[in-house]
Amino acid sequence: MQIAIVLYDRFTALDAVGPYEILSRLPDAETVFVAERTGSVRTDTGALAVVADRSLAEVTCPDVVVVPGGPGQQALMEHRPLLDWLCAVDAASTWTTSVCTGSLLLAAAGLLDGRRATSHWLALDQLKRFGAEPAEERVVADGKYVTAAGVSAGIDMALTLSGRIAGDEHAQAVQLATEYDPQPPYAAGSPRKAPAQVVEALRARSRFILM
Amino acid sequence: MQIAIVLYDRFTALDAVGPYEILSRLPDAETVFVAERTGSVRTDTGALAVVADRSLAEVTCPDVVVVPGGPGQQALMEHRPLLDWLCAVDAASTWTTSVCTGSLLLAAAGLLDGRRATSHWLALDQLKRFGAEPAEERVVADGKYVTAAGVSAGIDMALTLSGRIAGDEHAQAVQLATEYDPQPPYAAGSPRKAPAQVVEALRARSRFILM
Repeated sequence: MQIAIVLYDRFTALDAVGPYEILSRLPDAETVFVAERTGSVRTDTGALAVVADRSLAEVTCPDVVVVPGGPGQQALMEHRPLLDWLCAVDAASTWTTSVCTGSLLLAAAGLLDGRRATSHWLALDQLKRFGAEPAEERVVADGKYVTAAGVSAGIDMALTLSGRIAGDEHAQAVQLATEYDPQPPYAAGSPRKAPAQVVEALRARSRFILM
Repeated sequence: MQIAIVLYDRFTALDAVGPYEILSRLPDAETVFVAERTGSVRTDTGALAVVADRSLAEVTCPDVVVVPGGPGQQALMEHRPLLDWLCAVDAASTWTTSVCTGSLLLAAAGLLDGRRATSHWLALDQLKRFGAEPAEERVVADGKYVTAAGVSAGIDMALTLSGRIAGDEHAQAVQLATEYDPQPPYAAGSPRKAPAQVVEALRARSRFILM
């Protein structure tokens, strides 16, 4: 089984690395980081570069595709080399997945037409423009399309997918190996739970967060 | 404020990227990935390489130090270039932190003598050998030393630290921006919660997980 994780300039690191950490532990899985060109790809903060070992042209039939989000996504919404690749590999994939605003790229490629999907809470409305049906849930599975909410939700998405692919006991073992027993010191992880002034301040700054 | 995240061969990616995603959003922070030599550093699975933009020699007085864990940690427990660097930067750091078995490196450097600290649940006992007092908690702060449990616990550690450094509202905004509202599909993230057979199977394989 081959798992392809897509990288592009100004992606959000945890969107990609969360699912990688979980999915790369699937039995007999090969995980590859893929970008338009091989070489290092810088994340949204500029402080971290991750290496794409393969180019899009070199990865033609992955079983699982993971598309992270990040501010760089905006520049790719009409970028045919990536969108065409997504369509081509989706034709043979077992699972096509995204984290955060990665779902907007899947939608722009026409893969989420009429499907329920999620995204970062600040970007959820944008899914509609591309024919998807936004669902305010942490992980949304519609057929083989599994989309996750913002950034950290990729970990929950990947555990869900691991259970579907390799069974509950495998997924539980990975959760235990990564000691994923979350205990956030605040309860501010969703707009429904966070203090109103924190939500409003972030909404006002959303152009800078997502773009 | 400078945040230095240490990389070494066969580190665990999420140990480093979890805290990076949270801490790099601190106001006026510069985050740098640092390793013995600059260039790409491969993680424990071999499937991912992350770039160290700075060498240890180039980073002499970070305010925050983050040491991830991973199977590669074992080979460094007597590696003076890294241990001496940890001692040197700790002399001026505001916070010295670790994720997972990164705490064993801090302990090997002599920084956790008589201090409460945590680590991956499979490695907790090893802390004693190096003079630390193991605490079975997700995030342990003892003075300026903040240690996290296994892999994913670095996210909770970094949010805790963000609150101490920049206040609760900042940390809550970062939690909301990263949509860290965890909803794991299983309750198997700690040995106390996971099914007994999953715990025992992992314990039996621990040599392969941690080393």
